[in-house]
Amino acid sequence: MSYKAKIKVTLRQSILDVQGKAVDHALKNLGYASVASARIGKYIEVSINEAERGDAERICCEICEKLLSNPVMENYFFELESEPVN
Amino acid sequence: MSYKAKIKVTLRQSILDVQGKAVDHALKNLGYASVASARIGKYIEVSINEAERGDAERICCEICEKLLSNPVMENYFFELESEPVN
Repeated sequence: MSYKAKIKVTLRQSILDVQGKAVDHALKNLGYASVASARIGKYIEVSINEAERGDAERICCEICEKLLSNPVMENYFFELESEPVN
Repeated sequence: MSYKAKIKVTLRQSILDVQGKAVDHALKNLGYASVASARIGKYIEVSINEAERGDAERICCEICEKLLSNPVMENYFFELESEPVN
């Protein structure tokens, strides 16, 4: 069985998001006065080939902790979708 | 009314994702043989203060087209959630 993990990695709320601030300013300059508080994160899709959903979830947590996010300053969320084996 | 837009910007399928390839290799080196085809995108959250949901959707499309994505090589998807006004 193959699972597709859709992972969002976001900066913790207490961490200043300079990239988000830049987007905020750019949007103001473009005339979008109603848009505020942009925050920028990463979006990652990976395929995980495991027989059991539980194994896929465990692996997804591990790779988020070890490689895809910095747990000191980032949070991660993921969804697992089963996908047909090609 | 305030809406929170959750925007995903991903590379089109036909575009080589070098950052994703690097993540693939790193995962293989860490021993995760069952993980494959990582693709990396951006995840953006913005607040949009508009009375009508339709206006918020229109603005979200516009800022995705103009600023947040490169329509030549990227796709974008978004969800709008209404959020309580502070």
